[in-house]
Amino acid sequence: MKKLDFAQDDIIALATPAGVGAIAILRLSGQHCIQIVNQVFKGKNLEKQASHTIHFGTICDNDLVLDEVLVSVFVAPNSFTKENSVEISCHASPYIIQQITQLFIKKGVRLAKAGEFTKRAFLNGRFDLAQAEAVADLIAADSELAHRTALNQMRGGFSLKIKHLREKLIHFASMIELELDFGEEDVEFADRKLLTSLVNELQSIIKHLIQSFAVGNVIKNGVPTVIAGKPNAGKSTLLNALLNEEKAIVSEIAGTTRDVIEDELVIEGITFRFIDTAGLRQTNDPIEKIGVQRTEQKMKQASIILYLFDVNDNFTEELSKIKIDLDAQNIPFLMIGNKVDMLENQELIKNKILDLDFSENQIVFISAEKKLYLENLQNALLRMVNLDSFKNENTIVTNIRHYESLLHTQESLFDVLNGISSGITGDLLALDIRNALYHLGEITGEITNDDLLANIFSKFCIGK
Amino acid sequence: MKKLDFAQDDIIALATPAGVGAIAILRLSGQHCIQIVNQVFKGKNLEKQASHTIHFGTICDNDLVLDEVLVSVFVAPNSFTKENSVEISCHASPYIIQQITQLFIKKGVRLAKAGEFTKRAFLNGRFDLAQAEAVADLIAADSELAHRTALNQMRGGFSLKIKHLREKLIHFASMIELELDFGEEDVEFADRKLLTSLVNELQSIIKHLIQSFAVGNVIKNGVPTVIAGKPNAGKSTLLNALLNEEKAIVSEIAGTTRDVIEDELVIEGITFRFIDTAGLRQTNDPIEKIGVQRTEQKMKQASIILYLFDVNDNFTEELSKIKIDLDAQNIPFLMIGNKVDMLENQELIKNKILDLDFSENQIVFISAEKKLYLENLQNALLRMVNLDSFKNENTIVTNIRHYESLLHTQESLFDVLNGISSGITGDLLALDIRNALYHLGEITGEITNDDLLANIFSKFCIGK
Repeated sequence: MKKLDFAQDDIIALATPAGVGAIAILRLSGQHCIQIVNQVFKGKNLEKQASHTIHFGTICDNDLVLDEVLVSVFVAPNSFTKENSVEISCHASPYIIQQITQLFIKKGVRLAKAGEFTKRAFLNGRFDLAQAEAVADLIAADSELAHRTALNQMRGGFSLKIKHLREKLIHFASMIELELDFGEEDVEFADRKLLTSLVNELQSIIKHLIQSFAVGNVIKNGVPTVIAGKPNAGKSTLLNALLNEEKAIVSEIAGTTRDVIEDELVIEGITFRFIDTAGLRQTNDPIEKIGVQRTEQKMKQASIILYLFDVNDNFTEELSKIKIDLDAQNIPFLMIGNKVDMLENQELIKNKILDLDFSENQIVFISAEKKLYLENLQNALLRMVNLDSFKNENTIVTNIRHYESLLHTQESLFDVLNGISSGITGDLLALDIRNALYHLGEITGEITNDDLLANIFSKFCIGK
Repeated sequence: MKKLDFAQDDIIALATPAGVGAIAILRLSGQHCIQIVNQVFKGKNLEKQASHTIHFGTICDNDLVLDEVLVSVFVAPNSFTKENSVEISCHASPYIIQQITQLFIKKGVRLAKAGEFTKRAFLNGRFDLAQAEAVADLIAADSELAHRTALNQMRGGFSLKIKHLREKLIHFASMIELELDFGEEDVEFADRKLLTSLVNELQSIIKHLIQSFAVGNVIKNGVPTVIAGKPNAGKSTLLNALLNEEKAIVSEIAGTTRDVIEDELVIEGITFRFIDTAGLRQTNDPIEKIGVQRTEQKMKQASIILYLFDVNDNFTEELSKIKIDLDAQNIPFLMIGNKVDMLENQELIKNKILDLDFSENQIVFISAEKKLYLENLQNALLRMVNLDSFKNENTIVTNIRHYESLLHTQESLFDVLNGISSGITGDLLALDIRNALYHLGEITGEITNDDLLANIFSKFCIGK
């Protein structure tokens, strides 16, 4: 790893969210931070305490008591940043947090920049860059799959895969570099056939990872889903029926997730984000409006369109028109026949449907109001996303930076293959392999630079 | 203290504010909580760890890792609640907080009610009721004085004063009870003269405490302040000039206090809360409108009125009218001559002012735009609040419940004095003394009941 210079000065930040609560944590890190906290702490001598111990006392600005606190001491290298660290657990009062922070600023500690604790942890070798990035994803994760993917990445699963790929390539790179040393003797240490088969193997793994990004994106950002249909088809009722079930589960723990699930529905760990189609709903003839030209923008946002219709209406013409439009745009859709509880003649509808030539997976029947057969709808949604092939996989690319690095790696490996087949010289081949290694190394931070790091960590919150 | 029954079941709550941040703390308390956390913690055996130690590991729901965490172990009675306690420091993700909380609910832990941790701390004798109530005040405190008063109360300063008062009374109460035992022998163990002088002494202390509530209220809730004046007198400019200075100081620490100081100004630890007088501003003739009838409601909210005028206008008639109105309503006011930087003839204005017969403390001259002489305005504001007599006192009543109990104590002591002077019998005297003791005891919770406790702690946030 390229060693970066940075001053080991002492930093402080609020690590817990701002707002009303019982406890707030102020986090300090840096060579002198235990000593500095000790100067303003009335209680035990913190400099003489073992790592990972907690001490009750007061934080005082000279004689003025600012708060009664618990101080946790972490002695380097046994801390998150691998530096000396202190966590001050004080009352979650903005005034107290401000006063304590200002006291430490007076003592020469400076405010941490966004992501600076994590950046220090990375620079001190606690984890690699992909792992550090996963911390932010983990905090943002709001579904089972997003959580599992981020946690796996944070714990090094993805990094290990990249590391294996690099190791294999490095072996060949060194072989070829060796050839260059013996350049005039015209020896081939690196078997071109073996190299070809290795690169092909790597390409297949990288291709799979690149493909996983589509899934990773769904996992991280949810599936954009549009519920369309004529007025009074029951769109709002359906959305409420779907969301209410979810809200009932979540509301067990008041205040934790309510904001997050607003207009989102998590089914078996996958988030479906419902896009407001108010524009569509207000038109008089929604069928017409779902044409390519006029609603293109809304539709492009949607991965899935749920088209709701009233089974008691004459829907044959409506649905066949919609089907042609959506098929032309290649947008996955699901027809939802609503209000089955009010249906009088079941046979009649069967015949109507048969005429329309839908596949089994393209249509379900429910009653949104009576909450009947909603599980069929949910299962159909899950089938449409079809994450099955990735669902049990731990390594899924969710980060666009990693995705781009993998694309570049793929290109470089393609150049390697081309080079071998056209018999280019070892030094040119070495260049292409080094390019591939460079791009793989960008992912985990073996290859890095100040700008990249600044860019990555500035997206973190302060205190992380 | 009346011992209350309550089940020592295990409780959990988020102790840190909800929202985006790096770290969240889930707090557990109860006899079995260390053992329960240990069941889902992969790391060291928590049951074998010393109190006040921190342990890294993962929280797992069977094989599913929910998060990497730091677990702090507190062994009874060395915890906030005096019960076994655990603090789990996890990533501040709503999803993770929800998952971990649900895991513990599955394990038989229940969600804590508002204030339940503090209530347990009180019931287990960590502190008395007045101290417990101060915790909420401390978290809400947003100025130096509010903070100092709450902290002193939390640390037992106020309780100690009440305790001393009670002890003195208890001594006499027991003397009189002794008389009752010897009822038929007609002895007086309790010297009526000494009792009278004691009660007079207590009354004077209690009166002082009751009086301090007016100040306590200002400290806790701020001074409601109205800035009035003709359009273009410079009201907004003044408010911004005053607030901006403060904001500049506060904004050093982003995100901690910005919401709190909105429209509030803290001068030397005292909060001035500016009341919106948009209604006044929109009228064509604001002078007329500041009459008793029409703006009575706004005015009643104000402890202080700042009346701003342009020194370059003809203000004599305007100000004299206002002065008569405000004097009639007995509202403290301060006349502020603005735009002195644009003044051409200083002598002229001096003569105008002399005609108006203001006291030296009733008028200041500034330039809001140029930020000139704002410190004179601030000093004038401080003089108007006149906290000097209480400023260096630690024991100030800020809680309306305490205030009411003190009023009841005062009444009972008044009855005692009346009783002595009218020579009533010892048993009746004992009743009045016991009443006074009862009301004093309510403050610190020596006398309490379930309803009172429920009422007090329900005002706390969950997790406290």
